[in-house]
Amino acid sequence: MEMLSLEQVELVSNAFSFAIAVMGAATVFLFLGRSQVAPHYKTAVTISGIVTLIAFYHYWRIFDSWHAAFNVTKTGLEATGLKFNDAYRYVDWLLTVPLLLIELILVMKLSREETVSKATTLAGAAALMILLGYPGEVSADMGTKFKWWFLSMIPFLYIVFSLFSGLSKAINSQPESVRDLIVTARNLTVVSWCFYPVVYALYFFPGANVGSAEVATYVQVGYTIADIVAKAVFGVFIYVVAVRKTEANA
Amino acid sequence: MEMLSLEQVELVSNAFSFAIAVMGAATVFLFLGRSQVAPHYKTAVTISGIVTLIAFYHYWRIFDSWHAAFNVTKTGLEATGLKFNDAYRYVDWLLTVPLLLIELILVMKLSREETVSKATTLAGAAALMILLGYPGEVSADMGTKFKWWFLSMIPFLYIVFSLFSGLSKAINSQPESVRDLIVTARNLTVVSWCFYPVVYALYFFPGANVGSAEVATYVQVGYTIADIVAKAVFGVFIYVVAVRKTEANA
Repeated sequence: MEMLSLEQVELVSNAFSFAIAVMGAATVFLFLGRSQVAPHYKTAVTISGIVTLIAFYHYWRIFDSWHAAFNVTKTGLEATGLKFNDAYRYVDWLLTVPLLLIELILVMKLSREETVSKATTLAGAAALMILLGYPGEVSADMGTKFKWWFLSMIPFLYIVFSLFSGLSKAINSQPESVRDLIVTARNLTVVSWCFYPVVYALYFFPGANVGSAEVATYVQVGYTIADIVAKAVFGVFIYVVAVRKTEANA
Repeated sequence: MEMLSLEQVELVSNAFSFAIAVMGAATVFLFLGRSQVAPHYKTAVTISGIVTLIAFYHYWRIFDSWHAAFNVTKTGLEATGLKFNDAYRYVDWLLTVPLLLIELILVMKLSREETVSKATTLAGAAALMILLGYPGEVSADMGTKFKWWFLSMIPFLYIVFSLFSGLSKAINSQPESVRDLIVTARNLTVVSWCFYPVVYALYFFPGANVGSAEVATYVQVGYTIADIVAKAVFGVFIYVVAVRKTEANA
């Protein structure tokens, strides 16, 4: 990889610090807000806060790993030789991505059978998606990268399909006061999630200078923004749905 | 920038540590006090505590960044080459300034539509104000600095205008026991916020020696005092309003 400029290193560092602050703030907000929703929705809000707490922890590690990889001296920036650890992101996703789908299902208050079956299949597909993506992310071989990306896209597309087709009936049976909010939460999930395979697929674009410092900067900032939307903004959405349904006794 | 004296470095460091203590204390006070207000005001008090928590985190980073920039040796003070990271302030403001306006709106207990519309427009204007200010803050060119300061002043003046005109009607409909307090909270917001563009505008004052160690010291101490007033003192005000309204069953 090309060496980053001091400005690029600082931009990424500030994005990571921003994520730490957002994830921490969201966690506290959700854990305190938990007392304001009906018992039936407490688990959905608890899990929303746990997702941002896990992300808070990993962004702290990511921030430290980033700072350990670069050294600012009086003469400029130099690599320390320590590699920035991208694996923290995958460990985070392996835990949080299945939980995000469970949040969405729990706040819908489906029948117990439907909750268990949808949670199991969607969370299982999400975990599989992350596990299949990782060998490609760490490989330097383009063929290997593509193979694992392709395999990982199968559970990804299955999840997107399920969110749009399988959940539509469940969404239509929601109280009217929250239906729009749940549709927005579902769409937020799909849109923010699409960001990840697209960033990954940058490697395959002909002419894309994937080793460049610029692409490395965009990827780190981009993943961070996507994580903030998919976890913190989404979590607050789930909380608002829970509050509205509590007020409507639904 | 001119090199600071040891006394100036210590003064700024002590101001930062003071802010850490105040923000931490305010956070705990607000989170514990949350149980003493009626359900309707809990979110306002939660957000007040989250604002001081976010500021607590950033002042911790700011303190560390300040100490990393200077080295005290037996022969005196020297710069380490690491730059003091001013971006932490902007990242903090981007999160906390919209939340401060939301606190004020939430504690007023307006109708849901009015709450959502005022919160969206004011918080959006606040985020825009911070985003427009940043490119000017980091630029070394006076023309660029002025352009972004000027652009940032548009949402700033819009917010001040909204707080005085748009909120007046809402304030007049508040119970009498808290009306003065809410007016004070509103004025506190406007006065403490005015400090920021004035400090920023120091750069344009003819004859102001902006690169001097003295100005750098005043700016850091000044921003810190403004943050304490706008976040911690203001947050406690919001809490007192919530307690009074709880007592009055309003």
